[in-house]
Amino acid sequence: MRARLAAVLDRPLTRYTIMGVILFNAVILGLETSDSIMARFGWLIVALDMACLAVFVAELGAKLVAHGARFFRSGWNIFDFLVVGIALVPAGQGLAVLRALRILRLMRVVSVAPTLRRVVEGFVSALPGMGSVFLLMGVIFYISSVIATKLFSDSFPEWFGTLGASAYSLFQIMTLESWSMGIVRPVMEVHAQAWLFFVPFILITTFAVVNLVVGLIVNSMQEAHAEESNAATEDYRDEVIRRLAAIEARLDERR
Amino acid sequence: MRARLAAVLDRPLTRYTIMGVILFNAVILGLETSDSIMARFGWLIVALDMACLAVFVAELGAKLVAHGARFFRSGWNIFDFLVVGIALVPAGQGLAVLRALRILRLMRVVSVAPTLRRVVEGFVSALPGMGSVFLLMGVIFYISSVIATKLFSDSFPEWFGTLGASAYSLFQIMTLESWSMGIVRPVMEVHAQAWLFFVPFILITTFAVVNLVVGLIVNSMQEAHAEESNAATEDYRDEVIRRLAAIEARLDERR
Amino acid sequence: MRARLAAVLDRPLTRYTIMGVILFNAVILGLETSDSIMARFGWLIVALDMACLAVFVAELGAKLVAHGARFFRSGWNIFDFLVVGIALVPAGQGLAVLRALRILRLMRVVSVAPTLRRVVEGFVSALPGMGSVFLLMGVIFYISSVIATKLFSDSFPEWFGTLGASAYSLFQIMTLESWSMGIVRPVMEVHAQAWLFFVPFILITTFAVVNLVVGLIVNSMQEAHAEESNAATEDYRDEVIRRLAAIEARLDERR
Amino acid sequence: MRARLAAVLDRPLTRYTIMGVILFNAVILGLETSDSIMARFGWLIVALDMACLAVFVAELGAKLVAHGARFFRSGWNIFDFLVVGIALVPAGQGLAVLRALRILRLMRVVSVAPTLRRVVEGFVSALPGMGSVFLLMGVIFYISSVIATKLFSDSFPEWFGTLGASAYSLFQIMTLESWSMGIVRPVMEVHAQAWLFFVPFILITTFAVVNLVVGLIVNSMQEAHAEESNAATEDYRDEVIRRLAAIEARLDERR
Repeated sequence: MRARLAAVLDRPLTRYTIMGVILFNAVILGLETSDSIMARFGWLIVALDMACLAVFVAELGAKLVAHGARFFRSGWNIFDFLVVGIALVPAGQGLAVLRALRILRLMRVVSVAPTLRRVVEGFVSALPGMGSVFLLMGVIFYISSVIATKLFSDSFPEWFGTLGASAYSLFQIMTLESWSMGIVRPVMEVHAQAWLFFVPFILITTFAVVNLVVGLIVNSMQEAHAEESNAATEDYRDEVIRRLAAIEARLDERR
Repeated sequence: MRARLAAVLDRPLTRYTIMGVILFNAVILGLETSDSIMARFGWLIVALDMACLAVFVAELGAKLVAHGARFFRSGWNIFDFLVVGIALVPAGQGLAVLRALRILRLMRVVSVAPTLRRVVEGFVSALPGMGSVFLLMGVIFYISSVIATKLFSDSFPEWFGTLGASAYSLFQIMTLESWSMGIVRPVMEVHAQAWLFFVPFILITTFAVVNLVVGLIVNSMQEAHAEESNAATEDYRDEVIRRLAAIEARLDERR
Repeated sequence: MRARLAAVLDRPLTRYTIMGVILFNAVILGLETSDSIMARFGWLIVALDMACLAVFVAELGAKLVAHGARFFRSGWNIFDFLVVGIALVPAGQGLAVLRALRILRLMRVVSVAPTLRRVVEGFVSALPGMGSVFLLMGVIFYISSVIATKLFSDSFPEWFGTLGASAYSLFQIMTLESWSMGIVRPVMEVHAQAWLFFVPFILITTFAVVNLVVGLIVNSMQEAHAEESNAATEDYRDEVIRRLAAIEARLDERR
Repeated sequence: MRARLAAVLDRPLTRYTIMGVILFNAVILGLETSDSIMARFGWLIVALDMACLAVFVAELGAKLVAHGARFFRSGWNIFDFLVVGIALVPAGQGLAVLRALRILRLMRVVSVAPTLRRVVEGFVSALPGMGSVFLLMGVIFYISSVIATKLFSDSFPEWFGTLGASAYSLFQIMTLESWSMGIVRPVMEVHAQAWLFFVPFILITTFAVVNLVVGLIVNSMQEAHAEESNAATEDYRDEVIRRLAAIEARLDERR
């Protein structure tokens, strides 16, 4: 019974149907952003959205029944469970935010389409290798935020009033957005030496980001290199060694 | 008859003439942007532009006659056909835009000059490999636009009033242009937690773009690598295996 | 006695304790930035900060006793010595800055955690290879600052009044922050040809930065390449040559 | 006589002296930017600058005598000749600019220091490979400038009034500086569809720039790769083939 259900769920037809419902739901949720359309067809759009949600809930329920506890072993299943689950949380307060998050349901298109799935898996698999650089950037950001808050919170409470505000401003500075005209020049009018803090901060964080990208490139290159050439090379090397051994053996047997 | 026409069109002299007309046309269309020159020599410039267009139409017509339906098998021919065709569309309304697009005719310089042609072909050949990342970015942009419109359309109709406005604003934020001072800080004055949406958006899209570039680098490197070394390596490997086989054969025949 | 002390300091338990104190100190110094918390628990936070500092001083003192003059041979020890030492300088004037710099003590987390240590060592080891490009950029910046000061100091004293101001403005322009709308367009209203200076400056410095990044990538790639494949390749090549030599030797001995 | 002069000029002592004069001159020209120093020691600084210039003229004169017409075969000599020559042009009008350009003389430090020289040669050697992409970008910029001038010159004469103004604005947009908030949003208030021109322009030029960088990386990598591993590989391959041939020859001679 369970096995039959799992087989039905794995059929291409089921997969394509779900994909179609996701895309249809995407259009529905897009139309929902238009006030004029909502004024005229609001009831229909809400109903169709409900119907799509019902299909997702039914599909996930069937999967849960078919696979049991194993369902939660796959990261993609947990992902589906969460993005569908959000839509079922009763939206008491924080209404608008929860409604907006319902659109995350469309992310299911990623878990259903194999190409997108592979791209995201590629992205995620690159993250652990960058873990220690992220950790270092976290340390740099925390220390810089404390220094910036201590030095500039009195004169510029809007930008550096709290640890959080400083971290946000430093993130903006790291992306180089309006760092000088918007932030550092005004700060330097009060603290003339402020560039001694900000310019090294920019240089260090930019260098760290560049190193992250370099690490990504080197990693991808090695993987590509390994996949591509090693199979052929190893076959060739094995054959050379085998033939050399055969020649030696024949020479030995004729001694 | 057709073959003779095709031969004439393929001659270097024809090619150089066309190239010369394109460059001359480029100068003419450049002069057309100057009001003072147009006031004095407007009739001459329009006439010369007409003459250049006539040459292009004649050349394309000749090519069509010479190659028949095969003409449309080459992407570059279709490209030439379109950029010349634009100039022939009668400019009723949307006058200014159609006139401005006539300059696209100069893009023919790309299809005529082999070096430029190769660069563009290199660019275009890199696109399919990036298809799935583009698709993923499309999904991210659509979902983010819907969320941004839902959350911020009431308070900031200029930036997030419609799906299109949101997509444009998010593109601007992805390029990091005035993202904080221009958009997110004003938004945060109304929705204090807005950074929870925008900072992850920046991190994810930047990471996706970095991955696109990394993919491009790895691809180019592999192609360069393959072209360069594999011919020599395979020749060498074939020779080693051949010689080893010969040695084994001789040892066998003397048994 | 010294050896025993060194052994105790090297124990994992000691290392983890120090790490714990650093992280605890980080939280304390973070809380110190909040005015409301300082108003109520200021005495406690100052006392705990003092206690953490005492632990660091004691640890460094013990290390100095245990290792003697060899202590200063390790760059990381000098680093620890300096960041802890800053906290002990009596803060007479420039009070705020010295207090803010005390947080640099948290950088010790880098010298204590092996992963972070390795990342920083990787960063630092990449610097010498970039030395000559940095030197060249220094030359470009100095020359450009002198030119900019000479040309624009009278009309724009705020941006190009002194060599230092020019260098800062040029750094801002190199990062492309508000270079046109903020600086070059206003300058061009007075000196119409100013773009002849600024656009080449942007092109040259951007190209130099790109070359730095390219150099980093090539270096990392070569290191990764060398580590990975050469061991296997050299083993294989040695074996092929050894076996070929053996075959020749056997053929020779049977002559 | 000439050969002796050339030998004297090639001596390390001469090179180091010239280098010293350049660095001294750099300091002098840096001091010249300070109004307060010029007010008190202006005569001294001008005199010292004259002396440095005299040394450069004498050195170049000696080189010209020693090498004759061959002097102009080296790009670096022409470079020295030009940057020193600028200082000798009588500064009638355009006074300030010519005076400012005198500082270019400091660029001689690049031609004298071998490390800097090599970096610049590395940069310059990368340029030809990027020639066709530069050409393509030139075509894109010219066509885009004509289109932008035609479409927007009436409404925004400051940004798109002439071909030159458009090219400058498009360069700014390509660097992503204030492209949206500063230029495209204001333009879209008049021409609502303007993003159809600017967004593709940004995508295409950014993609071209990325391709330039990718090309640089692949080139550097190939050169590094070729230098490093091919010598060892070719030695090994030659030895294998030689030994295999020897074995075959011995087997043949014993038939």
